[in-house]
Amino acid sequence: MYTMAGMNTFSIGVDLGGTSLRVAAFTQDWERLSAISMPTRVDAGPEAVLQDMVSAIRQLVAEHQSGREWVGTGVGCPGPLELPSGRLLTPPNLPGFEGLELKTELERRLGSPVLVECDANAAALAECHAGAGKAFGTQSLCMLTLGTGVGSGIILDGHVWHGFAGMAGEAGHVPVYLDGLPCGCGSRGCLEQYASATAIARAGRSLAVAGPHHGQDPVTARSLAESAWAGDAESEEIYRKVGQALGIGLASLVSTLNLPLYVVGGGVAAAWDLFSPAMFAAMEAHSYIYRLTKPADPSIPEKGRTTVVPARLGPDSGLLGAAMLPFFA
Amino acid sequence: MYTMAGMNTFSIGVDLGGTSLRVAAFTQDWERLSAISMPTRVDAGPEAVLQDMVSAIRQLVAEHQSGREWVGTGVGCPGPLELPSGRLLTPPNLPGFEGLELKTELERRLGSPVLVECDANAAALAECHAGAGKAFGTQSLCMLTLGTGVGSGIILDGHVWHGFAGMAGEAGHVPVYLDGLPCGCGSRGCLEQYASATAIARAGRSLAVAGPHHGQDPVTARSLAESAWAGDAESEEIYRKVGQALGIGLASLVSTLNLPLYVVGGGVAAAWDLFSPAMFAAMEAHSYIYRLTKPADPSIPEKGRTTVVPARLGPDSGLLGAAMLPFFA
Repeated sequence: MYTMAGMNTFSIGVDLGGTSLRVAAFTQDWERLSAISMPTRVDAGPEAVLQDMVSAIRQLVAEHQSGREWVGTGVGCPGPLELPSGRLLTPPNLPGFEGLELKTELERRLGSPVLVECDANAAALAECHAGAGKAFGTQSLCMLTLGTGVGSGIILDGHVWHGFAGMAGEAGHVPVYLDGLPCGCGSRGCLEQYASATAIARAGRSLAVAGPHHGQDPVTARSLAESAWAGDAESEEIYRKVGQALGIGLASLVSTLNLPLYVVGGGVAAAWDLFSPAMFAAMEAHSYIYRLTKPADPSIPEKGRTTVVPARLGPDSGLLGAAMLPFFA
Repeated sequence: MYTMAGMNTFSIGVDLGGTSLRVAAFTQDWERLSAISMPTRVDAGPEAVLQDMVSAIRQLVAEHQSGREWVGTGVGCPGPLELPSGRLLTPPNLPGFEGLELKTELERRLGSPVLVECDANAAALAECHAGAGKAFGTQSLCMLTLGTGVGSGIILDGHVWHGFAGMAGEAGHVPVYLDGLPCGCGSRGCLEQYASATAIARAGRSLAVAGPHHGQDPVTARSLAESAWAGDAESEEIYRKVGQALGIGLASLVSTLNLPLYVVGGGVAAAWDLFSPAMFAAMEAHSYIYRLTKPADPSIPEKGRTTVVPARLGPDSGLLGAAMLPFFA
């Protein structure tokens, strides 16, 4: 994408989640101009959701196109996706949307090009250009997003790395404990079963049945973090195990990819101080490349060493990353 | 590198191993013009080995430069390496060579540019442009070399992927069995401890002490493959475990990288029929991306699916890949 120097432009980002649909306009400096949010009408089906997206995009374009040039639309949505075709495969949080030709259907309705990307890749792109990557001066990173599941995205030299079928960076399904918990993907012991908010809440509920957490309802990753911060040993132990699984997964990534920066985002990343010591210890135990290249103090980022940091951008990174797609396709 | 169309060129490849030093001249069509081999004089120290390399390179250049344009020299050597500086770090098979500035020292003596690459990356480059990658029409692959250790190289769009410090693709040290065998790298349960020729011979020696292999000396990966082919159940089981470990490691790679092609090379790959069924089974068990993208029959390569094949080139792939470096740097 090329625009004249000094020209003011804007792009539209769409974050299609299983719960909410968010659409926003951003300047080329990643400043948010305005946004529209609504519930995702999953039960009403793909046609209704496509219409909601198109209406919101048109409204934002109409609002801003008098003073700025519109450079395009990017959509982040749950994986797995087939790319570059932009076809949804079997998104677990969007039942009934299997096989939806998201890119084609949006382009047909809008009459303009649309770029579609897996939400975790969009978040990684935003962290690269406006978050941790920008702060540490690198354009190559891997981001793990610890939320309902564990998403991941790899950015090489400022662009999303897709692999040959658009599925690169499914690190949430790297095998961590071979005979471990069954995963929704059909395998066992995937990272997602140990480091997602869902996994943390499940571990907490098993405490709630037997232990001092009985009656605490609902048990969430957040409530367990609060217990841990208040000194509850069992909650601390749950987060220590999160760190351990994450460190094993990161050890594989460091040995394979040798990237300068790994970013941990998503809601769970708020508990960084609870899980990161065990995470760094597991990385040291399981990757000699990490041992060779780690900072003197792993918790203090160091330029030119293998650095792992919490995400800098909040939960809107996926929305911003979607808006970046027309610039970095 | 650019040369005039129709111009005949040649490059020099050097394969610096712990046992032998091989130098060869290749045409731009990867045809070998001539070669010089000698033992690597490890005990005589780096200076003697540098002199041996330079003499052989000069001899081959003198032999071919009357009819062809010399485009450069590439050297493959054991990792880990610091790149692009071309400095050896702690090569286990080249004691006394720690910290050697291989690229700088060769360039100073030759007065011309030298490209240095990890031997496993050089082999992967050769498989990409003249072996399995060429045969299957892809320029992106990951190659695992099962030899004394387990080396690996990642080629993206025809070029070696280095990561930020030249250490990308150390898949031999991906953790496969978390509490497994101690590895020379300082971790436990690395792929190398289960799928290298060294690991296979060690497993065989434990049989030789207790079982029917007693007195069979020396036990090697090759002799065990021959026992397995002759129907010995314990030797078959050893190779089944090789396949299982390899499949777990490949499952991580497939989930992370989503490349179209994985190539298994090195001496152990000759036993492909012994280990590949267990390898494919473990990939299916541990990677849903593999399950989504595998060929109808994993053992029959299929264009557009995640394919795993034995290497096409023999043990000279590292030498050829070194000679390719001036063309694909």
